[in-house]
Amino acid sequence: MKALVTGGAGFIGSHLVDRLLRERHQVTAYDNLSTGRERFLEDASRSAGFRIVVGDILDAGRLTAAVAGHDWVFHLAANADVRHGTEHTRRDLEQNTLGTFNVLEAMRAGGVRRIAFTSTGSVYGEPELFPTPESCPFPVQTSLYGASKVAAEALLSAYCHGFGFEARVFRLVSALGERYQHGHVLDFLRKLRTNPDEIEVLGDGRQRKSYLYVGDCVEGMLLAMERAAGPFEVYNLGHDQHCTVDESLGWITERLGLRPRLRHTGGTRGWVGDSPFIFLDASRIRGLGWKPTLGIREAVLRTLDDLLANPWLLETRG
Amino acid sequence: MKALVTGGAGFIGSHLVDRLLRERHQVTAYDNLSTGRERFLEDASRSAGFRIVVGDILDAGRLTAAVAGHDWVFHLAANADVRHGTEHTRRDLEQNTLGTFNVLEAMRAGGVRRIAFTSTGSVYGEPELFPTPESCPFPVQTSLYGASKVAAEALLSAYCHGFGFEARVFRLVSALGERYQHGHVLDFLRKLRTNPDEIEVLGDGRQRKSYLYVGDCVEGMLLAMERAAGPFEVYNLGHDQHCTVDESLGWITERLGLRPRLRHTGGTRGWVGDSPFIFLDASRIRGLGWKPTLGIREAVLRTLDDLLANPWLLETRG
Repeated sequence: MKALVTGGAGFIGSHLVDRLLRERHQVTAYDNLSTGRERFLEDASRSAGFRIVVGDILDAGRLTAAVAGHDWVFHLAANADVRHGTEHTRRDLEQNTLGTFNVLEAMRAGGVRRIAFTSTGSVYGEPELFPTPESCPFPVQTSLYGASKVAAEALLSAYCHGFGFEARVFRLVSALGERYQHGHVLDFLRKLRTNPDEIEVLGDGRQRKSYLYVGDCVEGMLLAMERAAGPFEVYNLGHDQHCTVDESLGWITERLGLRPRLRHTGGTRGWVGDSPFIFLDASRIRGLGWKPTLGIREAVLRTLDDLLANPWLLETRG
Repeated sequence: MKALVTGGAGFIGSHLVDRLLRERHQVTAYDNLSTGRERFLEDASRSAGFRIVVGDILDAGRLTAAVAGHDWVFHLAANADVRHGTEHTRRDLEQNTLGTFNVLEAMRAGGVRRIAFTSTGSVYGEPELFPTPESCPFPVQTSLYGASKVAAEALLSAYCHGFGFEARVFRLVSALGERYQHGHVLDFLRKLRTNPDEIEVLGDGRQRKSYLYVGDCVEGMLLAMERAAGPFEVYNLGHDQHCTVDESLGWITERLGLRPRLRHTGGTRGWVGDSPFIFLDASRIRGLGWKPTLGIREAVLRTLDDLLANPWLLETRG
């Protein structure tokens, strides 16, 4: 098949590109390189089936031209950081909601009707049900990020209903692994480089989070593409394990041979829109035969080791 | 209090304006007069506490200037017709999602933090649970209209969480009554004026719908504003009765003294995104002491009588 991956130079996107190329598909990465990196596509670039289009999903003309002629669109381009929503209220709306609308319109213009979309467990807000299933009660959004993603999901399902699109929506927990670009492992490592003796932890450190290794994430997506049957299908993609922020920090400091004092900023949330407990019920995708290959601790340590081996990933980009 | 009503010259909006003025509140109607009519505000215009600002919610500058200085915003301006979404894919997104974002940003700029919002029972898509409660399972959108409204709801709740806003969301069934501007009663009446002997009915005529008299709708909104406690509260506003499309047509033709042949277009839905069964569980707002004063048949006939008494409402606007 011919696949176009928006955000194809990003963390999850570049792994997906590699995986699709291994299956001998033709792959176009569409990325504005704002957070994506061409360096992540070094392997991919050696493949004859690969090409990259540098473009923004908000550039409807360029996007429409790029999308035409593909069989599937994997729409991963997004503002992927749930923090800072209240500082930049337009960012999630534009990059996630309007960006998804542009992708759908580009597909409609080009007669492309199959799409896989990376949504987020954040669309559940602060649910009352754990582990949280896809069919949990009508959620209340607690972040502009979650709001923008639930809006994008809604557009997808309306296009399935109205235009005969076929969509796979993946509600992800935070991914870990090689080419990691933002999140707690990076934040902690940066802080410990500045001061190995004391570290600030947002919240009370007891926030419980589930994570997933990026390779397991990509496998789940491809499996659901092959096996799911209906026109609009939603799958949680998360681990059956969870850990606290302090536990994860403990694994990191142990690996680094450090014993910093922890200074918690307090409160049950690390930032506005942070969810004190994220734990998804992934039995739906497990029913298709999927399961994670790495535990959360292993995924955290693999992320850390990759960051240590690639110190350029720690540099703040100008 | 000082209230600003977006869409204040519209069907529900103008009734809300009248009702607020009767309670001696100061009221600003903000309306672009695209579907709203100044004629609906003739009574209101005689009140010293009333003023109208002609403006579009997509005009952020004008909106921001108008919103400042109010205590409550009642955000009703919207594309209110669930049909035609697939013909004009940008309309619902712009008028409902981006329009709501602009209203929230205007409020933030002006330090206004309390908002009532007219959402829709269409956000439930085609639910499996009837009557459908506010907490029904995570819905799947079947129309661009529903998608745009669920996106707007999500923005509201995120602003409550992130900026200390207080919001009341009302998921309405279709409203009926004086100043009715679109919907099946108007459509049927127009068709019967053209041909009283035969009438086309979209779908199989067995679609089941719940309706609510506009006065009951406005009463429910005001009651929830007074009595609801939390920062973000959602209320279904619908009748405990429902009827079929053919039943409603029967009441209309009986009142008109006509006996047309019915020609059904077939299928269980009247248009893309039409829901074969709309029936909301309103026990949450009933718990606040609300109940409808008119039955659905009475509301249909009152709508019809108002249209017959005001034939200018039947004219298509240029």
